[in-house]
Amino acid sequence: MTDPLTRRHFLHAASAGAASVWIPRSVHGYSAGEVARSISERQHRAGISKWDLDTPCLVVDLDALERNIAQMQATMTRNGIASRPHAKTHKTPAIARMQLATGSVGICTAKVSEAEVMFEHGIDQILLTTVNVTAPKIRRAMALRNQCDGFVQSVDTSENARDLSAAAAEAGVTADVVVDLDPGGHRTGITPGAPALELAQLVDSLSGLTLCGVLCYDGGAQHVTGFAARKSRALERLEAAAETKVQMDRSGLDTRIFSGGGTGTYNIDHGTPGLTDVQVGSYVFMDAQYLGIGGERDEEVYSDFEPALTVLTTVLNAQYEGRATTDAGAKANTINRPWPIVKGETGMSYTSGSDEFGSIRYEDNASRIYRVGDKLEVIVSHCDPVVNLYDQMYGVRGDTVEAIWPIAGRGHSI
Amino acid sequence: MTDPLTRRHFLHAASAGAASVWIPRSVHGYSAGEVARSISERQHRAGISKWDLDTPCLVVDLDALERNIAQMQATMTRNGIASRPHAKTHKTPAIARMQLATGSVGICTAKVSEAEVMFEHGIDQILLTTVNVTAPKIRRAMALRNQCDGFVQSVDTSENARDLSAAAAEAGVTADVVVDLDPGGHRTGITPGAPALELAQLVDSLSGLTLCGVLCYDGGAQHVTGFAARKSRALERLEAAAETKVQMDRSGLDTRIFSGGGTGTYNIDHGTPGLTDVQVGSYVFMDAQYLGIGGERDEEVYSDFEPALTVLTTVLNAQYEGRATTDAGAKANTINRPWPIVKGETGMSYTSGSDEFGSIRYEDNASRIYRVGDKLEVIVSHCDPVVNLYDQMYGVRGDTVEAIWPIAGRGHSI
Repeated sequence: MTDPLTRRHFLHAASAGAASVWIPRSVHGYSAGEVARSISERQHRAGISKWDLDTPCLVVDLDALERNIAQMQATMTRNGIASRPHAKTHKTPAIARMQLATGSVGICTAKVSEAEVMFEHGIDQILLTTVNVTAPKIRRAMALRNQCDGFVQSVDTSENARDLSAAAAEAGVTADVVVDLDPGGHRTGITPGAPALELAQLVDSLSGLTLCGVLCYDGGAQHVTGFAARKSRALERLEAAAETKVQMDRSGLDTRIFSGGGTGTYNIDHGTPGLTDVQVGSYVFMDAQYLGIGGERDEEVYSDFEPALTVLTTVLNAQYEGRATTDAGAKANTINRPWPIVKGETGMSYTSGSDEFGSIRYEDNASRIYRVGDKLEVIVSHCDPVVNLYDQMYGVRGDTVEAIWPIAGRGHSI
Repeated sequence: MTDPLTRRHFLHAASAGAASVWIPRSVHGYSAGEVARSISERQHRAGISKWDLDTPCLVVDLDALERNIAQMQATMTRNGIASRPHAKTHKTPAIARMQLATGSVGICTAKVSEAEVMFEHGIDQILLTTVNVTAPKIRRAMALRNQCDGFVQSVDTSENARDLSAAAAEAGVTADVVVDLDPGGHRTGITPGAPALELAQLVDSLSGLTLCGVLCYDGGAQHVTGFAARKSRALERLEAAAETKVQMDRSGLDTRIFSGGGTGTYNIDHGTPGLTDVQVGSYVFMDAQYLGIGGERDEEVYSDFEPALTVLTTVLNAQYEGRATTDAGAKANTINRPWPIVKGETGMSYTSGSDEFGSIRYEDNASRIYRVGDKLEVIVSHCDPVVNLYDQMYGVRGDTVEAIWPIAGRGHSI
């Protein structure tokens, strides 16, 4: 292939009904292997236009990503608090490294397998926010701790604390542990106050464990619409945890970590006394869900961070009035709500309720009407589960592909 | 590890508060590598109990799977029609081979990358039901056709037919093509009748293409609740396609393939005159969505096929009244509705609305209350997108893991 087809050439050929560009340059037929290699090289080469990527694929705007990271760090610095970004959002070592390089004190992971893969890629300050209760996971965590001094685990029952201590002894390590506190949602963690204090004292007493403090994550607070409502909810739900932290301090227990909060409350969480770091995640990418919650300055749109993550998709069918069908359905977008937003266009909606197909509906004032083969970008609905569908993301600067990042933690749900 | 912990041992130890099982048998400490290898070997070895698998993981009951495939084939034979199962559901070559071995005439795929991976795994009768409109996809399809005589592509516009013909010439092949007919949903396909006939004649006339017939898939009919309503909808929506097929026959066009229908209408579709094969997919696994549509014999439950696919999950938190938290949330289950169903239990609901956590709520008559570390299985909500989250599925016979199947098409959305 001396003259690979670009999108423009192809669209031109298609619209003109001319087939000449398809005629082979030489008389010999290319082997399937040659064609496949050529496609593969073209697909994976940095420097090409994002519009030449085949679809559906995941694209991150590097300028927006960098601005989001800088904006977060500036706010953290101003508020005298640290960020400990949650890697469950991006699952991408390259982004974790950017976060650490700009001042984050470490990363969080939701699963031990995520922690392992981040450590394999050179990240060595990792807080695993989910408790491990199966023997294989506990052993994997201790094996990781054996190699990674900055790996901290969570615990929320005394039985689990004893298991962790015994497993640490088996592995020949002393494991760093934080107590997970329930902010009131009763999803994970132990009740703050006396139960938590008792567990912290047990952890402190067990020979295999080193107590490092507490974490308290109120997921429900993150998406409360309206800044004022979100602020009261977030501060109120962490009051008991803050009080527990004070009690631990008075008892002489180690509370070097008091981690909580997230993207929705990043400029609120420093109001919780003693909180050391914020587990921000979605701010790097943003998504339609977060755009809708409103911010401190802008009640309508949460504009503190820029939408940086899109799915690039191609129109497959445009022959019916008022609509078009694309190649990015639920398997490329999830079915989270609100639905993805078509980037840069107005007067159209996008739904990804079908497994294989996206659907565009035009309103009367649609800014454009698509033809078959046209490509478009949609701002993802909820970034975390969308990222988990892809093996790689394309980092673009303007329209040019600058980086191809493996999503090394994709599918690491164990 | 001479005495790897089984779940039973571990649960016993945890509930007794005894840490002795964790004490190493020898004085030397195991290296992280030894522990990791031991865990990995234990995880991936056929012959272990499914209850020893770490979670979340995807499990298929092989007896139920085999009965579902046999039941489908028996019905097809009785009705004098063939099945051409859709591999978008299972994305698993091992299951495609089982389907072909029991009488299916081929498989369908939704994406060219799925078709490629199925061919790489020895499947050579493949109908790609989605049109290819980008140059890379068209070239990949022609490269596949060059190697696979049984590969058939779809087309729904004259422009695309011309592109396919030119690309076939470039690749030195003649491509087998079916015309995709719109059943009225306007999602994909061309309008039956004159527009379709004209396109079929064009395909027939193009030197790079061989016309093989038509396909017409009415996805919306599959999940219509109630057998009678589903039957009228399915037959009515395929009437125009059947009429087009007759017109094509009269015009001397090749209609060796007239493919359509699915799991919800598998015992209805032979009523469409001329239909050659049914694109059944979900019947191999079943799911909560299909269970709810009702069947011909059973109005309440669609019991023609057995639920064979489950997600195995572990309880992480059981310290709050009336509920428990598991390790299988949206990233392990999707957020499709109805929610997953806890297998073998009553009086409890399961939701997977959180990305990382599943939530069990007990009713007054709950058949059991879980403890931390307990494992349970949930029947998946919608099998296709759930399968797409996993790299492998564990095939179990009774409680024993008999096979570990790579989901080779996982993430193949291009």
